[in-house]
Amino acid sequence: MSKGLTSRSEDYSQWYNELVAKADLAEHSAVRGCMVIKPYGYSIWEKMQSVLDQKFKDTGHSNAYFPLFIPKSFFSKEASHVDGFATECAVVTHYRLKNDGSGNIIVDEEAKLEEELIVRPTSETIIWNTYKGWIQSYRDLPILVNQWANVVRWEMRTRLFLRTAEFLWQEGHTAHATREEAIEETERMLEVYADFAENWLALPVLRGKKTENERFAGALDTYCIEALMQDGKALQAGTSHFLGQNFAKAFDVKFTSKEGKQEFVWATSWGVSTRLMGALIMAHSDDAGLVLPPKLAPIQVVIVPIHKGDEELAKISEVADDIISKLKAKGISVKYDDRDTQRPGFKFAEYEMKGVPVRLALGGRDLDNNTIEVARRDTRTKETLSRDNIADVVEQLLEEIQSNIYQKALDFRTENTVKADTYEDFKRILDEKPGFVMAHWDGTSETEQRIKEETKATIRCIPLNNEQEEGICIVTGKPSKQRVAFARAY
Amino acid sequence: MSKGLTSRSEDYSQWYNELVAKADLAEHSAVRGCMVIKPYGYSIWEKMQSVLDQKFKDTGHSNAYFPLFIPKSFFSKEASHVDGFATECAVVTHYRLKNDGSGNIIVDEEAKLEEELIVRPTSETIIWNTYKGWIQSYRDLPILVNQWANVVRWEMRTRLFLRTAEFLWQEGHTAHATREEAIEETERMLEVYADFAENWLALPVLRGKKTENERFAGALDTYCIEALMQDGKALQAGTSHFLGQNFAKAFDVKFTSKEGKQEFVWATSWGVSTRLMGALIMAHSDDAGLVLPPKLAPIQVVIVPIHKGDEELAKISEVADDIISKLKAKGISVKYDDRDTQRPGFKFAEYEMKGVPVRLALGGRDLDNNTIEVARRDTRTKETLSRDNIADVVEQLLEEIQSNIYQKALDFRTENTVKADTYEDFKRILDEKPGFVMAHWDGTSETEQRIKEETKATIRCIPLNNEQEEGICIVTGKPSKQRVAFARAY
Ligand SMILES: [Zn+2]
Ligand SMILES: [Zn+2]
Repeated sequence: MSKGLTSRSEDYSQWYNELVAKADLAEHSAVRGCMVIKPYGYSIWEKMQSVLDQKFKDTGHSNAYFPLFIPKSFFSKEASHVDGFATECAVVTHYRLKNDGSGNIIVDEEAKLEEELIVRPTSETIIWNTYKGWIQSYRDLPILVNQWANVVRWEMRTRLFLRTAEFLWQEGHTAHATREEAIEETERMLEVYADFAENWLALPVLRGKKTENERFAGALDTYCIEALMQDGKALQAGTSHFLGQNFAKAFDVKFTSKEGKQEFVWATSWGVSTRLMGALIMAHSDDAGLVLPPKLAPIQVVIVPIHKGDEELAKISEVADDIISKLKAKGISVKYDDRDTQRPGFKFAEYEMKGVPVRLALGGRDLDNNTIEVARRDTRTKETLSRDNIADVVEQLLEEIQSNIYQKALDFRTENTVKADTYEDFKRILDEKPGFVMAHWDGTSETEQRIKEETKATIRCIPLNNEQEEGICIVTGKPSKQRVAFARAY
Repeated sequence: MSKGLTSRSEDYSQWYNELVAKADLAEHSAVRGCMVIKPYGYSIWEKMQSVLDQKFKDTGHSNAYFPLFIPKSFFSKEASHVDGFATECAVVTHYRLKNDGSGNIIVDEEAKLEEELIVRPTSETIIWNTYKGWIQSYRDLPILVNQWANVVRWEMRTRLFLRTAEFLWQEGHTAHATREEAIEETERMLEVYADFAENWLALPVLRGKKTENERFAGALDTYCIEALMQDGKALQAGTSHFLGQNFAKAFDVKFTSKEGKQEFVWATSWGVSTRLMGALIMAHSDDAGLVLPPKLAPIQVVIVPIHKGDEELAKISEVADDIISKLKAKGISVKYDDRDTQRPGFKFAEYEMKGVPVRLALGGRDLDNNTIEVARRDTRTKETLSRDNIADVVEQLLEEIQSNIYQKALDFRTENTVKADTYEDFKRILDEKPGFVMAHWDGTSETEQRIKEETKATIRCIPLNNEQEEGICIVTGKPSKQRVAFARAY
């Protein structure tokens, strides 16, 4: 906690890197592209996992576990899938090391695999190969399974949480008897993600569909939620794919319908990853450190005693104990920091850096006056309040902080969502006031690609229930029926 | 559910394989040695995880996440460690596939790693390389971290849950300022495991230390819990290692003590894996299927309606609803199976196979008589009871089943723990009445090795607080001060 952070305005990217380090969230490991998620960072991820896991179970899903490795031949079975992932695969070729006789450990060439194994970048292929054995009749459907796992996509340029070679995620893989049911599932899970983003991460998101260019490799339709970061760049926070019958056909998975016909099974897959940690960090935090929505904060309240001598500390601790038990009774997580090795000012800065939503400070004068100092992290304001009903006050304050953080992010997005009607305007906005730029587009991949090359902006999504409006493409002037959301993105 | 199981007496190993398949717990995947953990099997593992995770947190540990891959050079840094794992490592050598031009996907030889990466078989090396950056002073100690992860140890002969190339586990890795504190931690975590085994898995365990031969590669002392399966073979259910300063020395991890001296850090590691699933299955189950201790059963109670026509079903469902809400209010998990696609007899067999501890059946006559049929899985007995206070009755019954299963396993172990005073006796017991054989041993690796070669029995452990008794080694006749526990083992 020795030094502050580079400010966001000075260098946003540097600010992010320093924040991840100083808030003890994660660090680079000795393995290129692989991160270490530190205990404090991991405790936030655990909270996310537990909320999402419950949402998956509430929507009828069960967890299961599939192999880390995928035979190379499986990959090739779905053509667009292998195209999408082949260039970023970690490949296992041997299964033994040996001593070379002079003390060096080397790969044992006699232990070469007949068929190479790919460390899963995603599990559609191994899972659909498994589902083949699980599905005979319509009675075996739907299959609603989720997996929490690590995956590897080799990346040359990595950033902690946002883009790493190995990351943690969940991947849902469902199998259905009909097209309609699979699309319903795809949309249901998108809404689960959107609800999680908005009501837990306090992050407003655009719900939409990807263009063909940006679809998941092997999907007929990719739905996504897109969030806006404080630097005006978009971040894809979750995706839900309607896979049609592509994987069923690749792995020959058929079922006997009620009418006795043999039909291919319909599929979806959907996932969110530790990338959400990056979104959470970047969306709300400020130049003093992390700002966490109370619903995902591992420590919601910290109490710091400000005392002269151990006798006064004992008295303060007694009062603190009482407050702690009242807060805990309300299900609020609270930490009492009576370390003698650090001064209060140091502790204040540390909990600000770590984004603890509410800080309570208790001093000698508070003992006499029945008061307590209440500081909130989001606004960095503090006031001295009576200790009567302090647990109720804190409970309400946590709710207020949760909705304030959301509102702030929503206001920011509203301010930074702008319509552009000419390509000139479009480029100017991207440079001067980056955010979502809503513009007409002629619907072709060529135009999309040209815009990307010329401006680095991509179509983040075609919003669901998009307003229909006659217009002309900002680049080609061809007719368009709706605006789509462009942005530069993580 | 079409056919029953091979009986245990006929072929124990075949019984196990069939049970794992028919109870829907796991299956082999297309990848040699890697398993698919099916939703029902995984839901049991999730219960284990949640109990253990809470116990780890209650003893002061936090979770974190470290990379899947370990640079080959890290492995070589602790000599006995690399000896222990080198021959069973999955090695990543390339990071890209490519199309060979004629439509085949092949490894891209231009994407060869400079240094090969090992898929972690355990994480001491990568973690201690990380801890080096976390530890400067005694104030940074202890570090009490756990990781839930997948690991890979290449195995030629695999069995679902018991020995698989990839498995799921947790691995605790702690760092301490003193030898004493590290030993205390090692023993504390052994006791956490023993408590979990006995009070949750309902599995009595021997607590002990491994001999030098059987120690973890890199440990000064390996503590273990050993359980006895129904075929008289032992199964190591958890280990806790005192690593001394071996890894601190290998990775140069020193701290400044309170006295201002530079000292090497002391380490422990401890783990349990999906192997516990194998132990759970084999310890209690019978020829009708799985027997689960209620505390780990995903479904504790199933209610099956036995009805003629939909009108009667409606009346039964009303009564069932009332019972369900009363059971749920007590925190008991309950499933109501009113599927019309299967007969009651089929359902009964299915829930027996899956080890649901209590089955309630409600028929038309029960409606009039205010009764219900209560069947318990462990004893396979049933009786018709009044529905008054049925929730209390079931709650008590679940506790009774939990302790009955434990007692049964304990009685079995007592009967099958036998003293042998001659090598003749020792061998006869192993063949005729396998179990733990308590015998005097001269303390040498040579004798231990000879016994293993001649009888396939190994020293499972030297029990903690072992009774001291003068005797002579059954093989060499040399003096011995205590008996140790031998067994054939999984
Ligand atoms: Zn003090
Ligand atoms: Zn019916």
